[in-house]
Amino acid sequence: MAIVDRIDFFTAAVDQAGLDAALIGVGPDLEYLTGYRAMPLERLTLLVIAPGTDPLLFAPRLEEPAARAGLLVPIAIRTWEETDDPHAAVAEHLRSSSAVGRIAVSDRLIALHLLRLQAHLAGADWTSATPVLRELRMIKDEEEVETLRRAGAAADRVVDQIAAGWLIGRTEADVADEVRERLLAEGHELAQFAIVASGPNSASPHHEASDRVIEAGEPIVLDIGGTLGRYNSDTTRTLWVTGGDDANGPTEEYRHLFGVLLAAQETATRAVRPGASAESIDATARGIIDGEGYGEAFIHRTGHGIGLEGHEDPYLVAGNDEPLRAGMAFSIEPGIYLAGRYGARIEDIVVCGPDGPIVLNNSARTLRVVNG
Amino acid sequence: MAIVDRIDFFTAAVDQAGLDAALIGVGPDLEYLTGYRAMPLERLTLLVIAPGTDPLLFAPRLEEPAARAGLLVPIAIRTWEETDDPHAAVAEHLRSSSAVGRIAVSDRLIALHLLRLQAHLAGADWTSATPVLRELRMIKDEEEVETLRRAGAAADRVVDQIAAGWLIGRTEADVADEVRERLLAEGHELAQFAIVASGPNSASPHHEASDRVIEAGEPIVLDIGGTLGRYNSDTTRTLWVTGGDDANGPTEEYRHLFGVLLAAQETATRAVRPGASAESIDATARGIIDGEGYGEAFIHRTGHGIGLEGHEDPYLVAGNDEPLRAGMAFSIEPGIYLAGRYGARIEDIVVCGPDGPIVLNNSARTLRVVNG
Repeated sequence: MAIVDRIDFFTAAVDQAGLDAALIGVGPDLEYLTGYRAMPLERLTLLVIAPGTDPLLFAPRLEEPAARAGLLVPIAIRTWEETDDPHAAVAEHLRSSSAVGRIAVSDRLIALHLLRLQAHLAGADWTSATPVLRELRMIKDEEEVETLRRAGAAADRVVDQIAAGWLIGRTEADVADEVRERLLAEGHELAQFAIVASGPNSASPHHEASDRVIEAGEPIVLDIGGTLGRYNSDTTRTLWVTGGDDANGPTEEYRHLFGVLLAAQETATRAVRPGASAESIDATARGIIDGEGYGEAFIHRTGHGIGLEGHEDPYLVAGNDEPLRAGMAFSIEPGIYLAGRYGARIEDIVVCGPDGPIVLNNSARTLRVVNG
Repeated sequence: MAIVDRIDFFTAAVDQAGLDAALIGVGPDLEYLTGYRAMPLERLTLLVIAPGTDPLLFAPRLEEPAARAGLLVPIAIRTWEETDDPHAAVAEHLRSSSAVGRIAVSDRLIALHLLRLQAHLAGADWTSATPVLRELRMIKDEEEVETLRRAGAAADRVVDQIAAGWLIGRTEADVADEVRERLLAEGHELAQFAIVASGPNSASPHHEASDRVIEAGEPIVLDIGGTLGRYNSDTTRTLWVTGGDDANGPTEEYRHLFGVLLAAQETATRAVRPGASAESIDATARGIIDGEGYGEAFIHRTGHGIGLEGHEDPYLVAGNDEPLRAGMAFSIEPGIYLAGRYGARIEDIVVCGPDGPIVLNNSARTLRVVNG
């Protein structure tokens, strides 16, 4: 949906949901609705949507020029001074709009602000704005998909660059630094994460790159991403470094495990189509991994939505019977982790197209056996 | 305070404050208490401190190895599976500990979690954990000061490198990219912000580096920082680029304005000592700027605390009569902004020492007239 239409659609949906107001703090929800990417600091910046009144952005006075430059849609700004109480001002505005019954807040609003707003509006019924806003944010328009595609292609290039480079004898942290530099060089504004999990660390899905030195004869799970054009990339590939000696190649067990994982990842991807439930994609991947006896080693859901946030709706997880719709974007990333030994993961970002999956990561997803 | 002692001190302070429990989500509070820098994702990771019981970290199962690697102190971990309800589990744990009366939460806990916890614990009295935790976090020990010093020195080097380089004809965004690269090259793990505000943009305190091309004969406010050793750097210097032609030098008005600003910044810094109130430092800087007729143009407080967070207690702002104590670290950063024309800011990180200020940024803080 074009950005100029989003606030109107959202306001109507807020009204229809029986909410008196929605309070959107700094973060991806604010950026989605207005284009404004405010600094995530402690001063209150808050978009107030109350059906029947004009949207109003409360912002610190010193942020006013940045807000005017950042807003891509016309919204009135009410500034507050350093010695004002902005939470009281928001409460007063809501009271004057008779919008103090059911109030929704953005999921990323921090407790610092929510607790103060609650104190000023005792008796209000507080809830999350996500059940309403997700209906807009989940369905990516063509421009959003194109941006996700560019972000994904940039991340793919970085994966290939790392896989072609020198790895053995370096620390994970050093390789992670290289990943971040390359993500920026390939056009990312932010290089938010660079998981470089070698040897036994590959059994930790969210391993933080450490001072461990990479050795020949072990796997490396490389899970990297950041934002490009404000949208997130996120892809995982698994390497095995040999040092050029075939004797250091993958074990039979690892080759088998990886084959199972690849089948699960690709089969789950092929199952994407409008109407298939989010949990059915998880079940497809999990069924294959379970069937080969690795079910206990697949310790996380199959995927998460992606867009302005690295993780957002829809989540591909048991219990989420949401039907996929064209325009939804999410990761498909099964993993198998043998604690204390090694693990593997394969991750692509996939868009649900009208006729099936549109895969945004296209670097080779086979086990990359490299000299390192 | 050594990290191994922090949880015990905090638990005692929670008890003394009449709180039944403190819930610490992902963020600097968790990192301060445990060393664990969890990924800021949507899954609940929460440290539960309830006096009389052992501290307990709720964490997603897939984060367990990362949590064990990240925790610098021994804490029991209770993992939850993807299809569990972790908020219900936390509520049940609190009920079984009879800790459901007054509950404090970390300021950075997001509404996603706070609203769900509140729904599971209706009737509890919710408040911020900061009034208790700030008493520990505000006073930096020697190791913390040393880390802040290293971060500041690295940022100083980047300022000098940028000031010595080519600027005219480049976009602000391009220079900001260079700042970020140089911060990383100088040892930062993260380069969180790079304000490059040229010409009229220098009148916007938090200007986001844009596609504006820098021209000869204008100022540039450079406000940069990130984390090094997990602690934040944050320094601002103001340049004026001439292109090598003296005719493009600063206007008389700008030189005067900058002289006032420098006097304000240095006088406020010299006023730092134990017992001086936070607001008195603000009043010192503001008095000098007011006295020269620029009071309306100094549109923000004088400073913010700094440490694991870029902005934290204490804030140097009117209304904050908190006495400074040895070990407090904060910015001193007055600014003068003439909307639509230009502005200037000077910022150092200063530690309150036992006998006066310890200044952690030491690059030349005069107006840097450079060829650019």
